[in-house]
Amino acid sequence: MAKIRVTVWNEYRHEKRSEVVGDLYPEGIHGAIAGFLGTDADLEVTTATLDEPEHGLTDDVLAATDVLVWWGHMAHHDLSDEVAEKVVKRVWNGMGFIALHSAHFSKVFKRLMGTTCDLKWRGQGEKERVWVVEPSHPIAANLEKDYFEIPLEEMYGERFDIPAPDEIVFMSWFAGGNVFRSGCCYRRNQGKIFYFQPGHETFPTFFQKEVQTVIHNAVYWAAPNNRPQLTFGFHEPLEPIE
Amino acid sequence: MAKIRVTVWNEYRHEKRSEVVGDLYPEGIHGAIAGFLGTDADLEVTTATLDEPEHGLTDDVLAATDVLVWWGHMAHHDLSDEVAEKVVKRVWNGMGFIALHSAHFSKVFKRLMGTTCDLKWRGQGEKERVWVVEPSHPIAANLEKDYFEIPLEEMYGERFDIPAPDEIVFMSWFAGGNVFRSGCCYRRNQGKIFYFQPGHETFPTFFQKEVQTVIHNAVYWAAPNNRPQLTFGFHEPLEPIE
Amino acid sequence: MAKIRVTVWNEYRHEKRSEVVGDLYPEGIHGAIAGFLGTDADLEVTTATLDEPEHGLTDDVLAATDVLVWWGHMAHHDLSDEVAEKVVKRVWNGMGFIALHSAHFSKVFKRLMGTTCDLKWRGQGEKERVWVVEPSHPIAANLEKDYFEIPLEEMYGERFDIPAPDEIVFMSWFAGGNVFRSGCCYRRNQGKIFYFQPGHETFPTFFQKEVQTVIHNAVYWAAPNNRPQLTFGFHEPLEPIE
Amino acid sequence: MAKIRVTVWNEYRHEKRSEVVGDLYPEGIHGAIAGFLGTDADLEVTTATLDEPEHGLTDDVLAATDVLVWWGHMAHHDLSDEVAEKVVKRVWNGMGFIALHSAHFSKVFKRLMGTTCDLKWRGQGEKERVWVVEPSHPIAANLEKDYFEIPLEEMYGERFDIPAPDEIVFMSWFAGGNVFRSGCCYRRNQGKIFYFQPGHETFPTFFQKEVQTVIHNAVYWAAPNNRPQLTFGFHEPLEPIE
Repeated sequence: MAKIRVTVWNEYRHEKRSEVVGDLYPEGIHGAIAGFLGTDADLEVTTATLDEPEHGLTDDVLAATDVLVWWGHMAHHDLSDEVAEKVVKRVWNGMGFIALHSAHFSKVFKRLMGTTCDLKWRGQGEKERVWVVEPSHPIAANLEKDYFEIPLEEMYGERFDIPAPDEIVFMSWFAGGNVFRSGCCYRRNQGKIFYFQPGHETFPTFFQKEVQTVIHNAVYWAAPNNRPQLTFGFHEPLEPIE
Repeated sequence: MAKIRVTVWNEYRHEKRSEVVGDLYPEGIHGAIAGFLGTDADLEVTTATLDEPEHGLTDDVLAATDVLVWWGHMAHHDLSDEVAEKVVKRVWNGMGFIALHSAHFSKVFKRLMGTTCDLKWRGQGEKERVWVVEPSHPIAANLEKDYFEIPLEEMYGERFDIPAPDEIVFMSWFAGGNVFRSGCCYRRNQGKIFYFQPGHETFPTFFQKEVQTVIHNAVYWAAPNNRPQLTFGFHEPLEPIE
Repeated sequence: MAKIRVTVWNEYRHEKRSEVVGDLYPEGIHGAIAGFLGTDADLEVTTATLDEPEHGLTDDVLAATDVLVWWGHMAHHDLSDEVAEKVVKRVWNGMGFIALHSAHFSKVFKRLMGTTCDLKWRGQGEKERVWVVEPSHPIAANLEKDYFEIPLEEMYGERFDIPAPDEIVFMSWFAGGNVFRSGCCYRRNQGKIFYFQPGHETFPTFFQKEVQTVIHNAVYWAAPNNRPQLTFGFHEPLEPIE
Repeated sequence: MAKIRVTVWNEYRHEKRSEVVGDLYPEGIHGAIAGFLGTDADLEVTTATLDEPEHGLTDDVLAATDVLVWWGHMAHHDLSDEVAEKVVKRVWNGMGFIALHSAHFSKVFKRLMGTTCDLKWRGQGEKERVWVVEPSHPIAANLEKDYFEIPLEEMYGERFDIPAPDEIVFMSWFAGGNVFRSGCCYRRNQGKIFYFQPGHETFPTFFQKEVQTVIHNAVYWAAPNNRPQLTFGFHEPLEPIE
């Protein structure tokens, strides 16, 4: 089996501007994610960041990416519309897309959803308990229990303005009184999309084992299949029409 | 109960440029649709067309519309991006949207879906049989049988590149060998969207009783409820956080 | 428009055996529910209870019921299999079914779901906050805000072993750390089913305004449409087969 | 990776009673299916049939089965309720279940669906064209085109009385004028279920390459994951309750 080619994309600005974030993620959030994914020899993992030329997402990079993992927050608007559109089209063409945390407001995710993707939030840090709602889903595999806790996370709360997900894998409880659909699957055109709520930059969430397990599972789930050839447009009759 | 305010929007160009279409729909497709909807005294029906100022969709018109019925085909690109965006936002804000036939490729529908909305098509005219898949759905109410036939329609065929619908009410069989998800419901933000496949401009589809019944049902289904007040953005804790 | 005929069914045993419950619901839980529904002149509301002959659900009663509201808890097994099967078949035939709280374990609901309907629970009483997830849904209409609180309720928690709902209207937060899909819609055959989590017998939940609003909305949503005539079994070809 | 253990179950009566069927499937339908699955060295394939003791489905067999493929038609009622219930519970406990063709009316499938599973049918043999509706789904992988044809099949037509599938992978067109949701995915408790329409005993459907590809894909999709440990019943608070 060919390796799954994963590109981990990150804004990589918080890490350079905030000492707290920089200390937590000295290799950047992308580095942390690429780090744990890279221990799987069946994955071929690279990274790309906002301030690289073409945001690190050249046509060649996108063409050679099976699954794109996305983290962005403060600088969604600094991503060029052109690159955002290219990524959307690559997802439509089969690339998996894993949107982490504040990527709910990224140009790519909002465009793919067709909604505002707005939500409630609270950033002071509070306990989040992630509950498994669909235990037979491959993205929930290899978790030990039917929930796990993140000691401190940013709260994201309903009403989350997304299309009803094709599958809800996780729902989260927050200490401050909110709930959230925190693990959501979508198919759009040929591509598979997974949104996963945890991962605020000021907390060590991406070093937590369960979070790593979920993202690792999601990469496998989102990887493209060898799909049938589709045709669109004018279609000759397959049966005689009187 | 207050009346439901329906605006029927039409490109209204085929009717003026093609004798066949003009003869079929002397009042325009919008006139035909407004005609049968207008016989229900609980609906308040008006029309708007592409070549009116602001495409007939001023802020006042949109604000006073509960359900917008949309027919467009040859001139999707002549709708200004600005008005398209206004309509999308009004749907998000609760206005129902009924996309008929070639409206699958309208700016508004594509933007709301987040996909290409591409499909197979064949325009020579062939028998379409519309099957009821979800008979308990209000949009299937008052149909006599579990299918109805349209003697001549344009074929639209799978793969239809849409998000998996929240509810599939109808599926169609075409004589030339194709199938299609021809009646599809979506919720997006506060708005309800119904896509209905029949309605090519060269056929008298909108004069057919069953088609009228379906569109009439859809207006009631898509009309906004008195929904709860939503809040987004920063959210004070509802419970004490240690 | 003909009135919607609602039958409210209750075990009606807790009220007679427990002073606490009897004091809370002197007319029985069915009496409380029938009380607030009965203030709507467009509903025709009657009640039935477990210990009546045929559990109050004779063929005539079922035939004359558009929507059946169900509360049961300690005595699910005292409902005869025969009556349970009749109710299931009547739902299949178009009767709406609203399963409240511990009705998740009723014979009828389990049979309709095809799963165990098991869950986590904790009965000491704790704060429940019911969040609106799908604000455009008619069952969420006329609520003031996007959540409401129940001061004391029994906790029901995920993993709730149900089929993924056709629509999730509400999700609940519980003070003790759990979350729950607390408002779930299903279509099964011709019938519509709504499961709503609140309503433990030792708490005055059914006197709370928001709970009453939701159940009232659900009655309208679950009421049968004038649906098309369905046929099953051998089907003559509609087109010539070579 | 451990091999996936597949048990192919068949009534195995038509083959013995009808010369036509016996000639088509000299090893039985189970033999034909086990034959093509068995060429994959990562699958461990065995068979079981109705007239074996305990219908070939002892506790040991079920415990050692990851995915159960089911074909039955004329003798659904000869399966004991006890074994049917065991199979249902094993699916709930994680075993994949692939219901082929007339298995729509098997005790196991009907029990898992909670509906009648009734449909229209016509057995004389006509062309079926299976359309790919969800091309990114793993069950559609490795098909060459977005449809394939079965020269002669039994027609199954809508309205198919099933719960709205979690995912519709295929929809079929029939020459006689009908359509059908012919590839349907469900999750029920821990188990994954795939219904696939083709496979009437009087046609050589199971020797067709595309049909084999789909069933092969479905085995991989339905195989259980290493899922988290679930708990049900009384649940101690995870947070202090005042």
